[in-house]
Amino acid sequence: MNTDFINPFLESIINVLTTMAGTEAKPGRPFLKTEKSAKGDVTGIIGLMGEKAKGSLAITFTEPAILHIASKMLGEEIQQVDGSVADCVGEITNMVTGGAKKILSEKGYKFDMAIPAAIIGKHHIISHKTDGRIICIPFETPAGSFFVEVCFSE
Amino acid sequence: MNTDFINPFLESIINVLTTMAGTEAKPGRPFLKTEKSAKGDVTGIIGLMGEKAKGSLAITFTEPAILHIASKMLGEEIQQVDGSVADCVGEITNMVTGGAKKILSEKGYKFDMAIPAAIIGKHHIISHKTDGRIICIPFETPAGSFFVEVCFSE
Repeated sequence: MNTDFINPFLESIINVLTTMAGTEAKPGRPFLKTEKSAKGDVTGIIGLMGEKAKGSLAITFTEPAILHIASKMLGEEIQQVDGSVADCVGEITNMVTGGAKKILSEKGYKFDMAIPAAIIGKHHIISHKTDGRIICIPFETPAGSFFVEVCFSE
Repeated sequence: MNTDFINPFLESIINVLTTMAGTEAKPGRPFLKTEKSAKGDVTGIIGLMGEKAKGSLAITFTEPAILHIASKMLGEEIQQVDGSVADCVGEITNMVTGGAKKILSEKGYKFDMAIPAAIIGKHHIISHKTDGRIICIPFETPAGSFFVEVCFSE
């Protein structure tokens, strides 16, 4: 997986959070995910399927980050993780993947998306079952951190 | 979603657990998943994509149930949820979906599978983001319960 492939996801999440939540997300350096990976409190996950490859995308938020983002998206202060937060995470996951799909399609990488699920639970870990590499991109927002993970297996 | 569609998943999980883990899983009555849903400790999730519908499948285990199943699959006593348990859950999810896919394909419902992910975290909740219905099938094993959730949106 090269930067051609990673940058559209990076670009897409920054766009979505700016547009939907007026929140600046600052990307850190992408790294290969290893066994010991970051834990998070709320995750959006979606299956990806291309002609030659299958994969998945997960966006794992810390609680402070997603409460901030959901409050901005919904225009009211959200103080705990509930169904409305799960809805926001599903929507963000869909929009980020849709945005990346559009950019990648223009570069000749075509894939389809399944439907997203949101996972809620303090300090959970996502473990992608793939022979391929898992790229993790850390992000910082003014309210806390989140991680975008993308993997494809050919 | 009718029983034509649900039964293959039910049949497939029973087969997989009998074959891979010598564990009898007894299905309860399938129900429509509502907001208040069961929590679990380890989940396998996978995206599904058909010609006319998209969906996802999640299998959520309680810790005692998955420790029992993983111990039987691996042939050694597993006392805590770790990477090897995540691998078992990924494999179960893949095999259950593959089995159901085969049965459904013979009935004329064709779909492809993305790659599975395992989620580890005490008492997490899975919230599928779909306009369609979410069918939940509860199961009991001698060691504890688990839930299979299937949803498709057209």
